[in-house]
Amino acid sequence: MSQYQVTFLPYNRTVEVSEGDSLIRAALKAGVHINASCGGEGVCAKCRVQIEQGTVDGGVSERLSQEDIKNGYHLACLSHVKEDVSVRVPVESSIDRSLFDKRFTPRRTASIRQMDFESLKEQGLFIPPVDKTCLQLPPPDSQNNMPDVTRLIEYLKLQADEHKLELTIPVIRKLPPILREHDFEVTVTLVRPVRDDGKTLVTNIQAGDTTGENYAIALDVGTTTIYAQLIDLTSGECLGESGDFNAQISYGEDVISRIIYAEKPAGLQKLQEMVIGTINKVLGAIIKQAQVGRENISTITIAGNTTMTQLLLAIDPRYLRRTPYVPASTLYPPFRAVTIGIDLEEHVIAMLYPAISSYVGGDIVAGIMGTGLYREEELTLFLDIGTNAEIVIGNKDWLACTACSAGPAFEGGGIEFGMRAAKGAIEDFSLDPITCEPMLATIGDVGPKGICGSGLIIMAAVMFETGVINNRGKFNRELGTERIREINGIWEYVLAWKDETQVDRDITLSEIDIDNLIRAKGAVYSGCMTLLEEVGLSMDMIERIILAGGFGSYIDLEKAMTIGLLPEIDPERVIFIGNGSLMGARMSSLTNRIRKDVVEVTKKMTNFELSETPSYMDHYVAAMFLPHTEIDKFPGVKDRVAAWKELTDRV
Amino acid sequence: MSQYQVTFLPYNRTVEVSEGDSLIRAALKAGVHINASCGGEGVCAKCRVQIEQGTVDGGVSERLSQEDIKNGYHLACLSHVKEDVSVRVPVESSIDRSLFDKRFTPRRTASIRQMDFESLKEQGLFIPPVDKTCLQLPPPDSQNNMPDVTRLIEYLKLQADEHKLELTIPVIRKLPPILREHDFEVTVTLVRPVRDDGKTLVTNIQAGDTTGENYAIALDVGTTTIYAQLIDLTSGECLGESGDFNAQISYGEDVISRIIYAEKPAGLQKLQEMVIGTINKVLGAIIKQAQVGRENISTITIAGNTTMTQLLLAIDPRYLRRTPYVPASTLYPPFRAVTIGIDLEEHVIAMLYPAISSYVGGDIVAGIMGTGLYREEELTLFLDIGTNAEIVIGNKDWLACTACSAGPAFEGGGIEFGMRAAKGAIEDFSLDPITCEPMLATIGDVGPKGICGSGLIIMAAVMFETGVINNRGKFNRELGTERIREINGIWEYVLAWKDETQVDRDITLSEIDIDNLIRAKGAVYSGCMTLLEEVGLSMDMIERIILAGGFGSYIDLEKAMTIGLLPEIDPERVIFIGNGSLMGARMSSLTNRIRKDVVEVTKKMTNFELSETPSYMDHYVAAMFLPHTEIDKFPGVKDRVAAWKELTDRV
Repeated sequence: MSQYQVTFLPYNRTVEVSEGDSLIRAALKAGVHINASCGGEGVCAKCRVQIEQGTVDGGVSERLSQEDIKNGYHLACLSHVKEDVSVRVPVESSIDRSLFDKRFTPRRTASIRQMDFESLKEQGLFIPPVDKTCLQLPPPDSQNNMPDVTRLIEYLKLQADEHKLELTIPVIRKLPPILREHDFEVTVTLVRPVRDDGKTLVTNIQAGDTTGENYAIALDVGTTTIYAQLIDLTSGECLGESGDFNAQISYGEDVISRIIYAEKPAGLQKLQEMVIGTINKVLGAIIKQAQVGRENISTITIAGNTTMTQLLLAIDPRYLRRTPYVPASTLYPPFRAVTIGIDLEEHVIAMLYPAISSYVGGDIVAGIMGTGLYREEELTLFLDIGTNAEIVIGNKDWLACTACSAGPAFEGGGIEFGMRAAKGAIEDFSLDPITCEPMLATIGDVGPKGICGSGLIIMAAVMFETGVINNRGKFNRELGTERIREINGIWEYVLAWKDETQVDRDITLSEIDIDNLIRAKGAVYSGCMTLLEEVGLSMDMIERIILAGGFGSYIDLEKAMTIGLLPEIDPERVIFIGNGSLMGARMSSLTNRIRKDVVEVTKKMTNFELSETPSYMDHYVAAMFLPHTEIDKFPGVKDRVAAWKELTDRV
Repeated sequence: MSQYQVTFLPYNRTVEVSEGDSLIRAALKAGVHINASCGGEGVCAKCRVQIEQGTVDGGVSERLSQEDIKNGYHLACLSHVKEDVSVRVPVESSIDRSLFDKRFTPRRTASIRQMDFESLKEQGLFIPPVDKTCLQLPPPDSQNNMPDVTRLIEYLKLQADEHKLELTIPVIRKLPPILREHDFEVTVTLVRPVRDDGKTLVTNIQAGDTTGENYAIALDVGTTTIYAQLIDLTSGECLGESGDFNAQISYGEDVISRIIYAEKPAGLQKLQEMVIGTINKVLGAIIKQAQVGRENISTITIAGNTTMTQLLLAIDPRYLRRTPYVPASTLYPPFRAVTIGIDLEEHVIAMLYPAISSYVGGDIVAGIMGTGLYREEELTLFLDIGTNAEIVIGNKDWLACTACSAGPAFEGGGIEFGMRAAKGAIEDFSLDPITCEPMLATIGDVGPKGICGSGLIIMAAVMFETGVINNRGKFNRELGTERIREINGIWEYVLAWKDETQVDRDITLSEIDIDNLIRAKGAVYSGCMTLLEEVGLSMDMIERIILAGGFGSYIDLEKAMTIGLLPEIDPERVIFIGNGSLMGARMSSLTNRIRKDVVEVTKKMTNFELSETPSYMDHYVAAMFLPHTEIDKFPGVKDRVAAWKELTDRV
C-alpha cells in the first residue's frame, strides 16, 4: 500500500501513513491532538482542520458551514489520505497552544519480529521433524519373497540409509496394496525422534513419488481464539492461515470457568468436542485455501496453554485450579491426530508443545522456542498478557517463569464500557489538557461502542500525564469541565456523548474502571518484580522485552510504561511477536532442532508460583499506583508528568 | 479316575483302563480284536464276550440268549469297567486264532508334554513381560507440585528402580483422578521391552495396591477353532480355558477360501468382525470361569497362522495365496487390543506371535517357542498336521521350515463318509484278517455316523498290514467277504451296515477315500523329505518328533508309521504337545525370555517354499505308496506285513 506524508501545522510535525488512513489516525500517530469524539462518523463535527497543501478524499460534510468549506476546512475523521498533504489544526484557544506540541509524543508500538525462516535455512536447521523418502523396491519373486515390511525396511536401509525404524499396524495395513499400486515405487513418511538414539517412526506410505508434497499444520489453541497455518515443508512457506473463536467460549470466557464447566457431568467431553469442532473448521479453511491434498499433510504441531491442552486431550483439568496447581503432565508423547477427533487422515501425527506448569503452558514455551531467546545472550523479559499474564525471564543460560491473574481488564472485561478489540471499540485516545476535550479513534472508524484494552491503557496514561487523574487514578475534581462528573458518588469522564455513540448513552470511563486497570497492570508488574527478585535481579537489568499475544500488537509502549505496566526501557528494545504460540508451532514444524531443544528448555526453566511467594503481595501493593509507589523507577514518566504540569500551570 | 485291569483271554493280555471305559475300548487298547460294528449301541450284538472274573456295569442285553446270559456272556460295547476283570473272547473259528495275538499290537499314542512351568520357575525365568508395581507417592504440596506424570516417573525411579519409561495419552488421562482416589497409593502396570535397551511401557494405573491381581490371556486363533486361557501372572496358574469354532467358518473352511472371501467387497471387514466376535465370546467365557476383574487383565498374547493374523488385523491377505507368497509382515508391534475390537479394557496390550512366511505362521512359531526345541540339542522334527501341514526341523543351532497342503483328508474332508472328530465319528478300528469283520469305536460310543481323520489312518494301516489293501491302496479282490464290494466300478469296504448306523445307509471306506489319504500323507512325508534334503540331512537322523495340533492327539503312532505319514522312529521319541500355538502363547505370557528369543528364532529359521523346490514332486510321487516306494525305509512295517502274510497264509 502506498505511503504518504501528512504534516500537521502549526506544530510542523510530519508522519507517514498509509493510503486511505483518516487524518485522525494520522494525528494520533503524530501525537497531535484534534478534538474528536464520534469515532469517525462525522457526527460530532468537532474535528475541523484546514487542508493547506494537497487534497484528501472526503471530509467535506454538511456539518461544515459554507464559509468553512470555502476556506478549505474538512472533518479530519472523514478525510482520507491519498497524497502528501499539509493540515492546519485550528488553535481555538487564545494562548499559544503550540507549546503543548513539545509534550505530545508520537505513538511507539513495538517492532515486529517475524519468524526467521531465512536464518533457519542459513544455519542448516531447515530439517523438518517429518520428511519423505521415495524408494524403488525390487518386486518380490520366488528367490526373494521376504515380507512387505521386511522389504521396505531393508531398502530404507540400503537406499536411504535409514535405521532404527518403527512401523505401526495402520501403516502395515496399507503396505501390501500401496506397494503394488505403482510397481513398488513408494514414498515413505518418516517422523524423526527427539533423541538421536530414538526410533524413526514410519507413519505413512504412498504409491509413487510424492516427496514434492509434504505439508505440516501449526495450530495454536487459545482460550479465546484458535489459529492454524498450513506449511509447505519443501519450501518452508505458509500456504494458508485462518482462525476462529474457540467454540468453548459459550461455556466460559476464561480458563477457570472452562475448568469449572469441565467438572460438570459430561462437561469435559463437551468442551473437547467444542474445541475439536473449531479446530476442524479452521483446518478445513486452511486446507481449502492452500489447495493441498489431505493425504500429503504429515503432521500437526499444537501449542496451547495447560488448560486448553488438557481439555483438548480430555484430561480432567480440575487440579489445575486447585492448590497446589498440579497439571496432569507437562510432556505428552506424539499421537495420531484422529484419536482425539481431529479431521485429518489416519496417518497424521500430532505433536504437542510441552508445558512448564499449570499456568505456564505450551503456548508460552512455543513463544520461547519460536523467538529463539533460549539460545541468545540478552537478558530478556518475555510477556504474554491477557486475562492471565505469563512472564518468562532469562537467556541461553537460565530461564525462570511465572504466571499471574491480571483479570479481564486488558481484554475489556470488568470495565463498564469495556469490550473486546472489535469494531467500534475505542482503541486510541488523546486529550486537550486545557479543555479536557478528547480525540478518539475506534476500530473500523465507526461510532464508538466501548473501550478495548489498548484504548484503556492509552486513556489512563494520557489522563495521568496531563494531571486529569492523579497517581491513584482519581480525577482532579477542579478541572471545571462537564466531561468530568460525579454520578451516584462515582467520578467519571465522558468519552463520547450519547448522540455520538452507537449505544445510545454516554460512553464514560470511571474511577472504578481505572482502578481495575491499575489492579491488572499492578499484578503484571509485581509478577515481574517478584520473579526478578527470586532470581536475584532487578528490573533495570532487563536488556530486551518480548511481547507476545494479540494484546501486545497495538500497545503504545510509552503509555504502557506510563501506567507502569511495562518497566521503562528504550522502546527500540521492545519486540512484538504477535501469536508466539503459533509462531513456535510453525518453527518446530520446520526444524527438528526445536523438538530436541525444548526438552532441555522445559527442564531448565524454573517455575515460581506467585501465590507461594510472600513478597508478591508487597510488590503488588507497591504497584497499585500510576506508575508505581516508587516513581523513581520511572524517570521518564516523572519527567513527562512534571513537564505537563509546568505547561498547564503556565496556561 | 480309578484305573482297573482288564485281562483278555485266551490271549492273556492285560491293559489298564479308566473306570467306565467299555470293553471295546479296552480291547482296542490291548490290540485284541472283537467283532463290533455298531459303535457301542448294542445293535449288531456281535461283540459277545464272557466275563470270567470280576463284574462289569451293563452289557446284559435282550440281544443275548438266556443261555448266553447264564454263561456270563455280555455285549462288550455295553459293558463298562468298574473293577479288575477277566474277559474271554470267544474263538469262533476252528483254527487257533490266538496265534494272531502276536501280531496285534497295543495302541501307541505319543506321550504328552505339558507346558513346563516348574522348570521355568527353577530357571528363574518366571518373569512375565508385564508386571505391576505399587507405589506410595507423597501427595503434592506447594513446595513440590510437579506434574502428576513427573511425580509418577520420579517415584518409579526412586521406589522401584524403573527407568526409560513411556506413557501414552490414555494412561495420562487416567492419572489425575486415580492418584487422588486412594491417597496417592497406586499400582502401575509395566510392559517390558523386548530389547534390554528398549523402553518400559506404562500401560495402566490403578488406585491402591492391586499387585496381587495380574492376569494375562493366551489366545490361539486357529482357522477352525479359537482357544483361550486366562493365566494368573502371580502364580502362573491357568484359571480358565475355553474354545469355540471360528465364526469365519461360514465363509470357507480353509485359509484359501477365507482369502478368496476377503477379496470380495467388504469381505475383509466381515471376516475380521467374525473372528473378533468369536474371540470376544471365548474371552467372555474364560473371564466368567476365572471370576477375575477385567480391570486386572493386563495383556493378551495371540498366536495364529499368517492368514488368521492378517484377517485379525484387517490386513488384506490376497498376496498370501499368490506367487511368490508374500506376507504383509512377519513381525507386528504390540498394540492396544481395543483398537481391533477385542472386548477388553482400553489398557490391555496385545502382543502377536511373529510368523516366518505366508504358510508358516505365528502358531507354529509359538509351538517352537513353547516346546523350547530351539534351545535344545536334539535334532527334532516338529509337525503340525491339518489341512496344511507345517514342518520344522532343527535344534538350538539351526532351524528350517516349510509348509505343504495336505488337503482336508486328515480332518475328514474329501472322504465320502469323512467327518470332523465329533460324536459318532469312527475313531478306532480293528479287523479280523480271516473274516474281515471290523471292530469299531466311535467318539461318544454311539452309532457310527462317519469316519474322522485318526480313524481313517488306523483303518488304512490295519487293512494294509493284514493284506486287505495293497501298497497302492487297492482292495484284495479275492477275500470273499461281503464287506468288500464293487459299486459302480468303485471298490469299497463296508464298515457298518445301514441298520447299525445313525445315517440310515451303509458306511463304507472306498479306494477313492484311501487314495485321498495316501495323497495327504504323501504330501506331508515328502515335505519332510524335501526339507531334510535341502538342509543336507536324512530322515534317520531325526532324534525326536513333536506333534502339534488337535490331529496328533489320538494318532496311533505305529499306524501313522505304517501308512508312511511319520518316519519310523521309536514311539518313545514322539511327543504330542496338543495345541502348540496356545501353549506358546501361554509360555510367553509367563516369561519375557520368549519374546526376546523369538526375534532371534525368526531370524534363524530358514523357510523353504516347496513349490520352488523341484525335488518335492519326485519325493511326492515316491510317497504315493503305503508306506512308501522304498519300503526299506520302513523296516518295521515291512516286518509286520510279512508276519501277517505268513499267519494268514497258514490259516
